[in-house]
Amino acid sequence: VQARSQTQLAVSTGAGWYLIGASPDLRAQILADAELQPRATNQGVARETPITGVILTGADVDAVAGLLHLREFQPMQIHATDSIIRILTDQNSIFGALQQSPNQAAWIRVRPGEAFPVAAPIASSSREQKNAEICCELLPLDGDFPAYVTRAARLRVARNEAVSGVILESASGKKLAFLPSVARLDNSWRTRLESCDVLLFDGTFWSDDELVRIRGEGKTATEMGHIPISGKGGSLAALANLRHPRKMFIHINNTNPILDPESAEHHEVIQAGWEIADDRMEFEL
Amino acid sequence: VQARSQTQLAVSTGAGWYLIGASPDLRAQILADAELQPRATNQGVARETPITGVILTGADVDAVAGLLHLREFQPMQIHATDSIIRILTDQNSIFGALQQSPNQAAWIRVRPGEAFPVAAPIASSSREQKNAEICCELLPLDGDFPAYVTRAARLRVARNEAVSGVILESASGKKLAFLPSVARLDNSWRTRLESCDVLLFDGTFWSDDELVRIRGEGKTATEMGHIPISGKGGSLAALANLRHPRKMFIHINNTNPILDPESAEHHEVIQAGWEIADDRMEFEL
Repeated sequence: VQARSQTQLAVSTGAGWYLIGASPDLRAQILADAELQPRATNQGVARETPITGVILTGADVDAVAGLLHLREFQPMQIHATDSIIRILTDQNSIFGALQQSPNQAAWIRVRPGEAFPVAAPIASSSREQKNAEICCELLPLDGDFPAYVTRAARLRVARNEAVSGVILESASGKKLAFLPSVARLDNSWRTRLESCDVLLFDGTFWSDDELVRIRGEGKTATEMGHIPISGKGGSLAALANLRHPRKMFIHINNTNPILDPESAEHHEVIQAGWEIADDRMEFEL
Repeated sequence: VQARSQTQLAVSTGAGWYLIGASPDLRAQILADAELQPRATNQGVARETPITGVILTGADVDAVAGLLHLREFQPMQIHATDSIIRILTDQNSIFGALQQSPNQAAWIRVRPGEAFPVAAPIASSSREQKNAEICCELLPLDGDFPAYVTRAARLRVARNEAVSGVILESASGKKLAFLPSVARLDNSWRTRLESCDVLLFDGTFWSDDELVRIRGEGKTATEMGHIPISGKGGSLAALANLRHPRKMFIHINNTNPILDPESAEHHEVIQAGWEIADDRMEFEL
């Protein structure tokens, strides 16, 4: 099976890059793509990262650990729900390492369902550049905070801010949906997802008992916040009649048989019109 | 200049691996070395990492972030000073992600200056395996906690537990010293270091004002907890009369001119009998 690095998306309008999520593999992912790498400045030695911001979809290690790779001395905007920001800044002092110089990391609270612009150069607000912006919206999903969030800490956060999807809309009106962790399929999203041009959807597990069978114990896919692909309530059946978007499974666990191109499960997914994400894929909206 | 990944050491007696430090690049470093990679078990799918433990030398992001890559479901011993364990477990809930199954991560408090055995298979205590053990000792260095540790948190930790070097001794009595962050050279170490066969020493900066000159502001090397290589109080001069150990600079910042094999600084270091560390070096004790 071709190994994948952990789920990571980066978007750009040509002026800087915004990350969607911050995977633990971020440094290797940046090193694999020249466009994301720091550029030498006029002085020759100091370097400037083209990454100007991050949008967080949750507080899971695989969605936030990459922030610790971004310890440059430049301003960076980190958009997330109030609850996610509280968890990272109040309960995890290590993210203070993003504040090596004053005004370096700016934590920006985002309400689920409210659109905000991203991927414009920081401190730019001219009309021309507005046109080049991408609009972003967090879609509240029915997930929970990661297990590391203590019971006491849960009293100070809001469950509907725990896990989000991201919907990106380009200036031309094209939309991409990024939903790496979907605990439950909600019929109210159907119209939203049908209007998208690209759908990147939670493909973590093929079956609900996948990890339990392998490890002999532990949680089901659903209990871990991921509806399985297969089965009666699975994503393959539930999203079968989405016609407009290009559909692709992402966030695929290394136990998921769809990763093996020879497997029956792989063929079933492809037959149903889905793609299986790989590293370094690009989408133009 | 040939890029290096972040400072990371792994030791083994043939039965499992112990990490010294846990660098943010750990996943890529594991993927670059088959010996460190998870092995398929008898069942074929579940995988077992050969990494059975970690010894932490400090709480800096570049010394601990790699722990977040180690979220397997296996027992792992994490040795560190009481202060470092407090910072990571009391003030950073995210490291709770290492506790996905009960008894997964065991945090083991180590007193600086007291030897303890490592790199033996967990739960083994037979005499034969004792012989294959490596003895480890934390050497308290005169460093400070990272800036992210809040003022309030500093009241609950001990400064002499902030930054440690590690001295490893094999069953045959060969010794390796690992000192990636040395804020001040202490003459009392001279005998200890002279008795070592390999010395891996802080080569972060060439000159004290290296970062200040490049960035136009900020802290000196000494203020950041690293004595520079050059100059009157630098490591090159201070350690010139260490004769026995093979001496090597590690933890080299990308601003350090010794990385460029064409530079005068590189030649000066080599002439003085030092080596410059590179990825994937191996030492047999």
